[in-house]
Amino acid sequence: MTTGAPERRGFDLRRFLFSSSGWPYLLVPFIPIAIGLELAHASATAIFLTSAAGVIPTAALMGRATEELAARSGPGIGGFLNVTFGNAPELIIAFFALNEGLQEVVKASLIGSIMGNILLVMGAAMLVGGLKRERQYFDRTAAGVTSGMLLLAVVALIAPAIFELVVGTGLPRPDAEAVNYDSDVERLSVGVAIILLLTYAAGLLFSLRTHKDLFNPEHAAEDHVAEPWSVRRSVAMLAIAGVAVGLMSEILVGSISEASESIGLSPFFVGVIVVAIVGNAAEHWVAIYFAARDKMDLAVNIAIGSSAQIALFAAPVLVLLSLFVGDFPMALVFNGFELGAVVLAVLIALQVTQEGESTWFEGLQLLAVYAVLGLTFYFV
Amino acid sequence: MTTGAPERRGFDLRRFLFSSSGWPYLLVPFIPIAIGLELAHASATAIFLTSAAGVIPTAALMGRATEELAARSGPGIGGFLNVTFGNAPELIIAFFALNEGLQEVVKASLIGSIMGNILLVMGAAMLVGGLKRERQYFDRTAAGVTSGMLLLAVVALIAPAIFELVVGTGLPRPDAEAVNYDSDVERLSVGVAIILLLTYAAGLLFSLRTHKDLFNPEHAAEDHVAEPWSVRRSVAMLAIAGVAVGLMSEILVGSISEASESIGLSPFFVGVIVVAIVGNAAEHWVAIYFAARDKMDLAVNIAIGSSAQIALFAAPVLVLLSLFVGDFPMALVFNGFELGAVVLAVLIALQVTQEGESTWFEGLQLLAVYAVLGLTFYFV
Amino acid sequence: MTTGAPERRGFDLRRFLFSSSGWPYLLVPFIPIAIGLELAHASATAIFLTSAAGVIPTAALMGRATEELAARSGPGIGGFLNVTFGNAPELIIAFFALNEGLQEVVKASLIGSIMGNILLVMGAAMLVGGLKRERQYFDRTAAGVTSGMLLLAVVALIAPAIFELVVGTGLPRPDAEAVNYDSDVERLSVGVAIILLLTYAAGLLFSLRTHKDLFNPEHAAEDHVAEPWSVRRSVAMLAIAGVAVGLMSEILVGSISEASESIGLSPFFVGVIVVAIVGNAAEHWVAIYFAARDKMDLAVNIAIGSSAQIALFAAPVLVLLSLFVGDFPMALVFNGFELGAVVLAVLIALQVTQEGESTWFEGLQLLAVYAVLGLTFYFV
Repeated sequence: MTTGAPERRGFDLRRFLFSSSGWPYLLVPFIPIAIGLELAHASATAIFLTSAAGVIPTAALMGRATEELAARSGPGIGGFLNVTFGNAPELIIAFFALNEGLQEVVKASLIGSIMGNILLVMGAAMLVGGLKRERQYFDRTAAGVTSGMLLLAVVALIAPAIFELVVGTGLPRPDAEAVNYDSDVERLSVGVAIILLLTYAAGLLFSLRTHKDLFNPEHAAEDHVAEPWSVRRSVAMLAIAGVAVGLMSEILVGSISEASESIGLSPFFVGVIVVAIVGNAAEHWVAIYFAARDKMDLAVNIAIGSSAQIALFAAPVLVLLSLFVGDFPMALVFNGFELGAVVLAVLIALQVTQEGESTWFEGLQLLAVYAVLGLTFYFV
Repeated sequence: MTTGAPERRGFDLRRFLFSSSGWPYLLVPFIPIAIGLELAHASATAIFLTSAAGVIPTAALMGRATEELAARSGPGIGGFLNVTFGNAPELIIAFFALNEGLQEVVKASLIGSIMGNILLVMGAAMLVGGLKRERQYFDRTAAGVTSGMLLLAVVALIAPAIFELVVGTGLPRPDAEAVNYDSDVERLSVGVAIILLLTYAAGLLFSLRTHKDLFNPEHAAEDHVAEPWSVRRSVAMLAIAGVAVGLMSEILVGSISEASESIGLSPFFVGVIVVAIVGNAAEHWVAIYFAARDKMDLAVNIAIGSSAQIALFAAPVLVLLSLFVGDFPMALVFNGFELGAVVLAVLIALQVTQEGESTWFEGLQLLAVYAVLGLTFYFV
Repeated sequence: MTTGAPERRGFDLRRFLFSSSGWPYLLVPFIPIAIGLELAHASATAIFLTSAAGVIPTAALMGRATEELAARSGPGIGGFLNVTFGNAPELIIAFFALNEGLQEVVKASLIGSIMGNILLVMGAAMLVGGLKRERQYFDRTAAGVTSGMLLLAVVALIAPAIFELVVGTGLPRPDAEAVNYDSDVERLSVGVAIILLLTYAAGLLFSLRTHKDLFNPEHAAEDHVAEPWSVRRSVAMLAIAGVAVGLMSEILVGSISEASESIGLSPFFVGVIVVAIVGNAAEHWVAIYFAARDKMDLAVNIAIGSSAQIALFAAPVLVLLSLFVGDFPMALVFNGFELGAVVLAVLIALQVTQEGESTWFEGLQLLAVYAVLGLTFYFV
């Protein structure tokens, strides 16, 4: 079949989602409801909740369409498509938030995605997968390469913050909407973004070309049980999904400030926990699904690989986009909570992936760390 | 024999202490001396030193009685008893310190116990054990699970401090006796404590039930050479030991403030170094004893497991106790020295246990790190 | 031959340099040029650049002479000579900088050497070595021991900074020339330095005597193709090289302040990037040379071992020297950039060496981290 090649990658994110289950489609009704509430100028909370639910099926459709297109394109371009569009929903949400001037929400959702994938997604996968088994195994070399990328990313993501702490004006407060930093740290952020993107491009070369065997779970093909889509259908669906994600995202983002206030949560908490979970709902589901079927290689790759993509691709792309979108460029200066969370999450990712084994208790520990961080953020 | 089961656990702390040696009993005379000095209102320094010496045999007796009772109870309850009472002396000392309002001494002794077990106990064990051998081996999987628990604990222990640093009033100064934090961080501390205790309970399930083979050093039974105690005798001894530990602890704690002043050491140093060493004297001895006999599995488990127990059991229990004891609740906000020490100690524990091997030089390095930290604390 | 023994060590730094290539000699003409410019009171920038180039061949000659002398001395003394003189050029440069009162430049160059060896040297070696190979292997046990030493060193190097942050006057600013700290942190620094040196001495005992087999790359002898030097010639050359290094260093250091101003770089950047690269040029070349020939054991040992030597030997020696040289003692209090860089670099070293494998992409990631840090320092 033509489906054999593209799934042989480390950054495989949404692959197989619909071949196993169509559950996100159950949330489709929330799309028109959210639009209706928005047009009716209903309460921000209602708009926020329904549009959050509405994002999930559109993101899932986007993932499916990307997969199908990739499957038709041969391994090289297919892999590239898959990886590039892998985080498109997160990027689209963030784009609209940038446009609204909610830079701190953007940064919070980036960090929330990284820590959510490592702690919540991987934790749930290891817990569910380990319930019926003594232990589960995955390839520690592939996971280690991706964890290593995360460690690089952490250095890059915290370097501008160290700069601000040592010679600048300090970190942003978590209750800020956006902070206009001076040009030095903005230029530093752009430079760091370019280094991250170049490294990311080199990583594609590494995982798709020179070392593609490393990221090759053998049990991939069997999962694609549904009829493959034609190229025409894939492109059409990708376009529809893109428009739908954009629409839902704009509605979602437009309601964040007001909704968070009326619910009594800080915009920071909404960005780092709620938006991050919504934007990564597909990964959550797929990783748990594979873990339950004892395909831990795929589950771990989805969790760690998705985090690495956010850090090395989505974050720098948004920094560069911010040069053209919004009132002023977004400096890569994270607040103290975000710095602490991302450093701890990546250290945990390094520790957890180094053995190539997991148990239910390891999964539970990851969830406990997520709970501790979430609780801390709740009190902000 | 009935002694076969309970020692098959990762959190085994004081097992075998007396089967190999009765040395702590040599310190028994300090018990009446401390009581006499206390009644005679002698100098605080003399009271402090004698009661510190007097704690050691009472803690040892408590450990022995717990072991014996556990050995009579079958693996499940026995293991639970052993683990729960494993840190009873530390808890009792801390309880009296809480009662005296010495919250910062309590927190210092918690951190001092964690770093002391990792650096001093494990370091001395690896050094002594490695002197006559090329290298020593231990099961890296079991040690890795416990180190992973420590990493979770670190996140939990530093989260409230990050909260205070970012949006609160800052960390406590090392020369404070107690700091009354606002209710947000107190509620956060309670929440974190509950998450830690739930994780600890899950860890018991993991190590005593679903994965008990992981923590099964085969060479355990042979060490229990002495005649086992009856249940009646065990319970009686446990009661006597509990009263004795409490008495010594109350005397010890009552003299800390005055004694530290007259010796010229800060209460912080006394808590983080002196009290921590006294409270863990039994672990120190037992771990070195096993290392010298090339039973590194046991030695490493005692050191790392004891640290994990302090972090995941003793610390949260004390936070919850502080709701009822003392003037105001104890927030889990550590000072900068404590945060630095616990993060570094746990990183070192992760590094050292990941290979499953040790040499004398590794032990010496751990001791050197302890010396550096101790020296730093000395100048406070 | 007598050359067999001394290269069997982990801290082997400049061995084999000239047997494979005499390229540093191409820079010899810069020595008289630098002297001439200095005497002619030419522009500081010209003096700085030429003396920086002139340091490289003198350092290389010093390395060669040390090697030759070591090869004549038998394994014990030979290894000791090699290790002790291994960082002589860095020490000599730093000595003159101390003498000029440029304590912050000294500290910057120490940190720059540590992070440069880990990120730049090891990164370039892994990238070049991995270009033509699927992956390269090295002994993870030996690399792990040295990485462990680095972790100890990090604790020691940041402990006085934690002290200053918590109870002192804060960290030095990166644009300071020298900061006169109070006597507590100076005494703490001296104490830490002594602990580091004792650990270093124990490490020599470990690597040269009790566990010398661990640091024994078998493919060493074959590289020594040139005719060995006599003892007389070795000593003479060592003396000549020492004088030449000293002369170049004094000229270099004398021009740093003025040159950095006229080039538009901060003295901090010059110390942490430029001086560190010049002082370690020999290591850079040799590590890449071995990596290209698939001798990753040697390449990794040079990079990590050289970092460990800087941290455990050069840094404490300079602290002790500063008691006698310069206006006031140099406290081991690093600025925020230096602390961040050294912690991150050592964490990366631990991660990269733990697998015992490398690929070109891992090398590229290390270089990317170096680029991010260098860029950050550029904006200071």
